[in-house]
Amino acid sequence: MISGAMLLLRRCCGLTRLSTQRLPVAPAVASCAVRLWSSSGEDQGSYQRAHGPSWRHTAAGLLAGTAAALAYGLHHHKAEQEAAFPIFSQEEVTRHRSLEDGVWVTYKGGVYDITAFVAIHPGGDKILLAAGGALEPFWALYAVHNQEHVLEMLSAYKVGELNAEDLKKQKPIQTSDPYSSDPERHPVLRINNLKPFNAEPPPEILSDSFTTPSAFFFKRNHLPVPQVDPASYQLQVEGLPGGPLTLSLEELKTRFPKHTVTATLQCAGNRRSEMNKVKQVKGLNWGIAAISNATWSGARLRDVLLAAGYGPDVARRACHVQFEGLDKDVTGTTYGASIPLNKAVSEEGDVLLAYEMNGADLPADHGYPVRVVVPGVVGARNVKWLGRIVVSADESSSHWQQNDYKGFSPGTDWDTVNFKSAPAIQELPVQSAITTPADGAVVDRSSGELTVKGYAWSGGGREVVRVDVSLDGGETWQVAQMRSSEKGEAPEAAPPPGRAWAWKLWEITAPLPPGAKELKIVCKAVDNSYNMQPDTVAPIWNLRGVLSNAWHRVNVNIREDESEE
Amino acid sequence: MISGAMLLLRRCCGLTRLSTQRLPVAPAVASCAVRLWSSSGEDQGSYQRAHGPSWRHTAAGLLAGTAAALAYGLHHHKAEQEAAFPIFSQEEVTRHRSLEDGVWVTYKGGVYDITAFVAIHPGGDKILLAAGGALEPFWALYAVHNQEHVLEMLSAYKVGELNAEDLKKQKPIQTSDPYSSDPERHPVLRINNLKPFNAEPPPEILSDSFTTPSAFFFKRNHLPVPQVDPASYQLQVEGLPGGPLTLSLEELKTRFPKHTVTATLQCAGNRRSEMNKVKQVKGLNWGIAAISNATWSGARLRDVLLAAGYGPDVARRACHVQFEGLDKDVTGTTYGASIPLNKAVSEEGDVLLAYEMNGADLPADHGYPVRVVVPGVVGARNVKWLGRIVVSADESSSHWQQNDYKGFSPGTDWDTVNFKSAPAIQELPVQSAITTPADGAVVDRSSGELTVKGYAWSGGGREVVRVDVSLDGGETWQVAQMRSSEKGEAPEAAPPPGRAWAWKLWEITAPLPPGAKELKIVCKAVDNSYNMQPDTVAPIWNLRGVLSNAWHRVNVNIREDESEE
Repeated sequence: MISGAMLLLRRCCGLTRLSTQRLPVAPAVASCAVRLWSSSGEDQGSYQRAHGPSWRHTAAGLLAGTAAALAYGLHHHKAEQEAAFPIFSQEEVTRHRSLEDGVWVTYKGGVYDITAFVAIHPGGDKILLAAGGALEPFWALYAVHNQEHVLEMLSAYKVGELNAEDLKKQKPIQTSDPYSSDPERHPVLRINNLKPFNAEPPPEILSDSFTTPSAFFFKRNHLPVPQVDPASYQLQVEGLPGGPLTLSLEELKTRFPKHTVTATLQCAGNRRSEMNKVKQVKGLNWGIAAISNATWSGARLRDVLLAAGYGPDVARRACHVQFEGLDKDVTGTTYGASIPLNKAVSEEGDVLLAYEMNGADLPADHGYPVRVVVPGVVGARNVKWLGRIVVSADESSSHWQQNDYKGFSPGTDWDTVNFKSAPAIQELPVQSAITTPADGAVVDRSSGELTVKGYAWSGGGREVVRVDVSLDGGETWQVAQMRSSEKGEAPEAAPPPGRAWAWKLWEITAPLPPGAKELKIVCKAVDNSYNMQPDTVAPIWNLRGVLSNAWHRVNVNIREDESEE
Repeated sequence: MISGAMLLLRRCCGLTRLSTQRLPVAPAVASCAVRLWSSSGEDQGSYQRAHGPSWRHTAAGLLAGTAAALAYGLHHHKAEQEAAFPIFSQEEVTRHRSLEDGVWVTYKGGVYDITAFVAIHPGGDKILLAAGGALEPFWALYAVHNQEHVLEMLSAYKVGELNAEDLKKQKPIQTSDPYSSDPERHPVLRINNLKPFNAEPPPEILSDSFTTPSAFFFKRNHLPVPQVDPASYQLQVEGLPGGPLTLSLEELKTRFPKHTVTATLQCAGNRRSEMNKVKQVKGLNWGIAAISNATWSGARLRDVLLAAGYGPDVARRACHVQFEGLDKDVTGTTYGASIPLNKAVSEEGDVLLAYEMNGADLPADHGYPVRVVVPGVVGARNVKWLGRIVVSADESSSHWQQNDYKGFSPGTDWDTVNFKSAPAIQELPVQSAITTPADGAVVDRSSGELTVKGYAWSGGGREVVRVDVSLDGGETWQVAQMRSSEKGEAPEAAPPPGRAWAWKLWEITAPLPPGAKELKIVCKAVDNSYNMQPDTVAPIWNLRGVLSNAWHRVNVNIREDESEE
């Protein structure tokens, strides 16, 4: 599959060049389209692999309003070809559903050969789900496609028309918005993508409270929020000697002790925007706030697995625990992920089947009625709206486990990447960021001093033991004060070794250095394995823009007081 | 204790300045002396805290042979004062055994007030062990003192003579060398300190074999190698409900299953020499080879603790397992360290009471007959010549656990350090280094390509998943090939998650870039928590020079072939 895709990728580059010759405006339009035509929220970012940096400017120009001439070119091309388009049957279209046979799709009666586009589709090979059929149901799911530029892009790939009879037979297009029952969200959130919903709070709100209020907790959905009826909810547990176990919500709450853990969740893409500044990556352009901290309560996964027959025999044949969400796309594919079995069954792993967040039922955006909370592990494995648990010899086969959420060398690009060569991200590396002041802020000289605040956290239960802060770009360092509880409350007891699941908030107040006109504020955290954050972004850059944990830098200007002038 | 020492440190700086005024040559001599006068091997490095960089050159000049004039100055001073020296009784000397009362010592009938020297003693406050008494037994232990420059330095602190009667009463000086029964060592080792013995293999030997031959395995002793009779050896296990348990070597071997683990040990000071290049630190000037990999066999510590009554009740009151070595100094103080209890008792922790290394009895230098092997944890906790195990609510109170082997911010110096503020190093951060080519090597252009080799490892059982190598100082990166077994042998099965105790050897062969005259080779490793090595040394510099894991850099010159000129 991978190597097939790789071959095609190379073939496609050739095809793209060919089509460029035929159609001079195509490259610019393609650049624009790949920014907009996306099959998932995570992939919304512009994808410039096949294009040099100058393309970005072209695309920006397009968006700024110079699209008319290009659109003319397209329409001209279209008009030229329209008469010649052959008529295809649905059967003929359906035969083109693989990279080998070509990838055809239909849209509003048109037939399109998008083979050459698959490799440059920002949403990856998920585009193949639509192969041989209609685009409409997918575009309804991934609303980012509903834009004029995407339609223009599509038109460049037109190869024919669907015959009238088959067009009539197509299922009436589901015009209702699959996101129509998504919950309301707090207006303070900064939206990175609306459908599916992805948003982060303003950074300065993060350091206001040790436990992030649920409404402000970053949201990272891959699909529409499913509507789950708590009365009929059933959790399936499979792969254990006791045979499949089915638990109602009530049973989950009453058959197992309720366990509470304060744990920070972080998206693998947190701080991706800093990688984008080095070189464009594929994914949502998260700032520094795709991380939040909450108190979670629920049954221990360990207890549920033991009740379903987990024992040493299972440990000998199984290595992973897979989770399936109830959120699904039009093909019925659910969100999925897995974690190592030893994390799931460890007494010290604290993995929860959580039904409460911050003392209340889980909000709809956070997995109501039940989600997995895997402390110390990347957000993507903390599956929401949990429907099924499978103990298995294998990892989850989902796209997100196998072909996403992995780290690569900065030298690896989309031509050379082999997703099998890297492990799925589980524990995250040490992280910290400055939540206030904001980059570009201005401080009055008369204030005399400056308070810098931020968060620090490390994966795998490794406690952050120090945060160093520099005001001069890393030349000299001071040690920040940290806290592990709400302001004014007594600090919580130190966590047992290896179970520091919650972040620490830190701050430092330093006098403004005399004579300085600008402060180059930098922070870096150290965890109790004495892992440090890398100095710079470029050497950890990776094509998916994950694991962005270089020193965080914020520049602040000092304004001299007028009275002193 | 700490704050007392801090106060004194400041007082001493004042005193040093005073003595400088009195004796113009003193600073240079002091700088020389602190390089040489040391109370432990780890502390042999020159300590320049109170001195600017220019002192280093002065010291180097001294060593290169310009000492005569200075020595004259000293002798002149000595001669001037000799007549005036008062006579003290041993009782009077003994009254000066603290920082508050002054620190006096005797040496060959002279009485010395070394109060001002305590704070700048490279061996730390261990010098206080000699307070009020004779230096001779200590200098016999720490042979680094037996040098003329040290004697000259001492003479500057002379305040009197011991009365003849008390001099006669001093115990006959133990002239036998406490290191006389240290084992023979392989001549290939690069000796950092002879007594106690500290040595590392040449780097290129390291990457020759996946399992380091015991003779080449780096040696890091804190004290003389104790002579242990295996027939009468007894291991004490204390702090458990079953009461103290005593095990003979035979019992350890027969009562508990033999368990074998391949584990890499690394000294906290590995690669310290790179920190010394940024700013002088305190400690042995290790290169990149204070790390080695071996196969260890022995009883599981977990099994022994269970036999001694370990259970959930103990887990509720105890947090640490302390180890005491049989190696001791003249006061009877043994080497000691501790690890967290959960690591010691975990089935997945693989902590061994090892009696074999690479399939043979432990060599004398590596802890014969029994040592602790704590996979994934800094060498210093892998206590050799193990005599006693104590399960306790507290960490080891030893110097090495409390006031050494901890990491601090680069902004922390000996005036501001608070050893209580940092956790004792346990798990080490991700590490890698280039073993070949050596820095400064020359490659012929005609060879066409270059092979770079090295090792990579991470603490806490985190598997190294990738090594990136750059030939252009970090601008572009390639991924190295890794191996986890001897060359030509089948690779071992992947370790279970969290139990990757052994390093990986890596190599990469790359064509020589056309036109390049120099290659700036850099390596950096990534572990499966996706922790990366920091880019540069200065921001992780710390006053003890531990945890040196920045990118490793080696520069190589390309020699154009004469035939081509």
